[in-house]
Amino acid sequence: MTDRKTIDLNADLGESFGHYTIGNDAAMLDVVTSANVACGFHGGDPEVMAATFRVARDKGVAVGAHPGFPDLWGFGRRVMPFSTGEIERIVAYQVGAAQALAAYAGHRLTYVKTHGALGNLTERDPAVAEAVIEAVRRIDPTLPLMAIALSHLERIGRERGMTIFSEIFADRAYTEDGHLVSRKEPGAVLHDADFAADRIVRMVRAGAIETVSGRMLPTRIDSICVHGDNAESVEVARTVRARLEAAGIALRALT
Amino acid sequence: MTDRKTIDLNADLGESFGHYTIGNDAAMLDVVTSANVACGFHGGDPEVMAATFRVARDKGVAVGAHPGFPDLWGFGRRVMPFSTGEIERIVAYQVGAAQALAAYAGHRLTYVKTHGALGNLTERDPAVAEAVIEAVRRIDPTLPLMAIALSHLERIGRERGMTIFSEIFADRAYTEDGHLVSRKEPGAVLHDADFAADRIVRMVRAGAIETVSGRMLPTRIDSICVHGDNAESVEVARTVRARLEAAGIALRALT
Amino acid sequence: MTDRKTIDLNADLGESFGHYTIGNDAAMLDVVTSANVACGFHGGDPEVMAATFRVARDKGVAVGAHPGFPDLWGFGRRVMPFSTGEIERIVAYQVGAAQALAAYAGHRLTYVKTHGALGNLTERDPAVAEAVIEAVRRIDPTLPLMAIALSHLERIGRERGMTIFSEIFADRAYTEDGHLVSRKEPGAVLHDADFAADRIVRMVRAGAIETVSGRMLPTRIDSICVHGDNAESVEVARTVRARLEAAGIALRALT
Amino acid sequence: MTDRKTIDLNADLGESFGHYTIGNDAAMLDVVTSANVACGFHGGDPEVMAATFRVARDKGVAVGAHPGFPDLWGFGRRVMPFSTGEIERIVAYQVGAAQALAAYAGHRLTYVKTHGALGNLTERDPAVAEAVIEAVRRIDPTLPLMAIALSHLERIGRERGMTIFSEIFADRAYTEDGHLVSRKEPGAVLHDADFAADRIVRMVRAGAIETVSGRMLPTRIDSICVHGDNAESVEVARTVRARLEAAGIALRALT
Repeated sequence: MTDRKTIDLNADLGESFGHYTIGNDAAMLDVVTSANVACGFHGGDPEVMAATFRVARDKGVAVGAHPGFPDLWGFGRRVMPFSTGEIERIVAYQVGAAQALAAYAGHRLTYVKTHGALGNLTERDPAVAEAVIEAVRRIDPTLPLMAIALSHLERIGRERGMTIFSEIFADRAYTEDGHLVSRKEPGAVLHDADFAADRIVRMVRAGAIETVSGRMLPTRIDSICVHGDNAESVEVARTVRARLEAAGIALRALT
Repeated sequence: MTDRKTIDLNADLGESFGHYTIGNDAAMLDVVTSANVACGFHGGDPEVMAATFRVARDKGVAVGAHPGFPDLWGFGRRVMPFSTGEIERIVAYQVGAAQALAAYAGHRLTYVKTHGALGNLTERDPAVAEAVIEAVRRIDPTLPLMAIALSHLERIGRERGMTIFSEIFADRAYTEDGHLVSRKEPGAVLHDADFAADRIVRMVRAGAIETVSGRMLPTRIDSICVHGDNAESVEVARTVRARLEAAGIALRALT
Repeated sequence: MTDRKTIDLNADLGESFGHYTIGNDAAMLDVVTSANVACGFHGGDPEVMAATFRVARDKGVAVGAHPGFPDLWGFGRRVMPFSTGEIERIVAYQVGAAQALAAYAGHRLTYVKTHGALGNLTERDPAVAEAVIEAVRRIDPTLPLMAIALSHLERIGRERGMTIFSEIFADRAYTEDGHLVSRKEPGAVLHDADFAADRIVRMVRAGAIETVSGRMLPTRIDSICVHGDNAESVEVARTVRARLEAAGIALRALT
Repeated sequence: MTDRKTIDLNADLGESFGHYTIGNDAAMLDVVTSANVACGFHGGDPEVMAATFRVARDKGVAVGAHPGFPDLWGFGRRVMPFSTGEIERIVAYQVGAAQALAAYAGHRLTYVKTHGALGNLTERDPAVAEAVIEAVRRIDPTLPLMAIALSHLERIGRERGMTIFSEIFADRAYTEDGHLVSRKEPGAVLHDADFAADRIVRMVRAGAIETVSGRMLPTRIDSICVHGDNAESVEVARTVRARLEAAGIALRALT
């Protein structure tokens, strides 16, 4: 058990586009401590980005750029056939756009976290992890990356001297080697908010990922990811937060 | 007549998109001292942007972000029905993307210049000029704007304390009050490279805009804009550059 | 009072895009007799179109192509600066795409109705009305157009020999000359479902538009438009339908 | 040797987009007998489509819809991660749009031919071939498909009772089993117009594909594909046409 007293709670927000609304950002921004803000490629647009950064600033919520594949139709969840060089450039483009709109709104990026299919690639494909690191490093080597715990991005990012925030997922089951159970498998997503919240408290206290069998895999944990794009999201997030606070673990944004 | 010894020469470059090529950027980058680089909304894409910034850096050419309306189909030449607030956000987004890709390529933005229909609006609509200034000011109040000489953007930008580079056009005729003759009018565009080059030398030496009647309107001139998107562009640009150098005016990028 | 026994009830449906959902199409398709299906420019995509056409066919709901400006970000509600020739081509393109996907889904277009800002232009700009008519006439001169009652599209379409279905709006107030009260005016949109439903019954029975002052302007009425894109839509549509049926007016799709 | 007296000559045309021009369509339309017209997803737009159909009609050139992946940035040359169902819908959408714009321009589609990465998939992936066939069959079972000779699309299309036009490529080398040598291999593309033209005459006369080793593989040949998107395209096409005519084989569009 660690003597951890604080943890970050992050969610994907700012994913609406024009008249198309996804998620309940206003409510989520009262619960999370960090918002991963879509950058206009898989979701979001300049209006949504500026508005999300402004509200986040007003509520004291930290913000991260959340770049994805240029695939609004597929919401960034399809693996697009991009070379690692192209991935570097689309990440750099989106991070820059987010930096500017954050500044425009009086806020400032705390980190970069990749979205959807691009995020999944950074977990399992070292070349994509390198590409994301390279893009951010060239823009600002002091800008942290948020990485899935035990991912290639986490490992290579630290090797490269980048600041890496490690995150675990509140509502996803973990395999015995600490990876996310595929959404195609039964039980991949935890639907019981109470179970999810209790598990998160155990993981944060232990500084370890809890697998489906109950095994604990020690790992660094800086942040907890909750979902923001469906009806139950707000309730799950609130339950996780309440349970953590009840356990004496304060929610605090990363810096 | 001024004792001016140097002037900047700028052109719109980096306007290609994927397999679609516009202009002869490689040749133009040997002639101009500043490149206005499209930011992916009306032209350009992350690949083109990064490549243009890289070559510009290697050739010692300064670069500016060249944001336009989000209208690839119309190449940014249609006035889109955006509010001034929306214009602020689309400018901020594009400037940020350009900053990041310039950094990615080892270069750095020297200025921001608006493109096409958006650029025209900054000349004649003070509210749009204010919006562009506000967007840039919030991102980086030290980042200069390039403005059409005698435009609202030039005037208001200076009033707001921004650094404004004033530009005149090598191949466009000027009305008696110093504005561009509409492209719908005969003689709006100068097709004779020699005439255009000689006129530019007169204007730079005099520190004045020469109208169609030959009247000289004193104004500040920091840069000369040549076109980069058609077959004759390179020849016109070369002729203008050669004539200026022959007249003892060196070409030098703004800083 | 006319001896009308049937009327059509239409709504804009199929406006979702990828993971972005707008409206409650499943519920609306149980209430309306005709669905105006977005064609992928301002909303909709090939997946949504095919699915909407298929469900409409299964439920016996007629379908119309619902072309709009190519402006997903603005949901087709911004007046884009297109020439009438360009409008002809974007309408033709979308109508063709809808015809093919309707056939793909085992259904068939009954009519074409323009969307949003484009629809508004067909009411007040005769040149745009001509453009829409020309586009449809060249593809299939027997394909009907649905037009706002008392619009230029209605008048010119009939003059050109096209089949025109005239529609009135269930939840919009009418000026003394029979046009829609601007949404910028107070009272433009009727929020009281009962009032709206009662007014519709009066209008259908009288074969006339009822203005805000209660004046009745005789006009042809083939269809009633209800909205499908907000939370109250389904309830308003159900109330209108129930009130009409209670008044002895059956709901039946146009043919 | 067959007693063939006529053959079709096709090229990809109408691939320009807004201000972005690709190819020399005006010149190519004087050489080919069929034009594969891009449908706005990987290239082309409603303006380009209508103009291409109109000129083709005026010059007596047959036209085919040329649907591709929705990837303007990649020009349809990247394999996008679409399910076969999604491929059915994007093909149907584009074919419908092309049918309508052809009608708008006073012309009529003679066939459908898939573009780029999608076309390549129809050669080697039977499930994609089935999807393309299904899309066209549901829209119009009498509408022919143009297929690469010896492809899955050719074989399955005939099994399904569709009219299939078989094409060979004027400037591409063939493997010993009759498939295109990958562009990654040396010699994949023939750059010698004379060699290419002579080989085409041999193939058409023999009714066979000539492999790199000179082996002749008997196959049905309805059309010859020449490229239209680079500088040498027009010259190659003219040479091929002249050589065929000199050999007594007339160029004639398919019907």
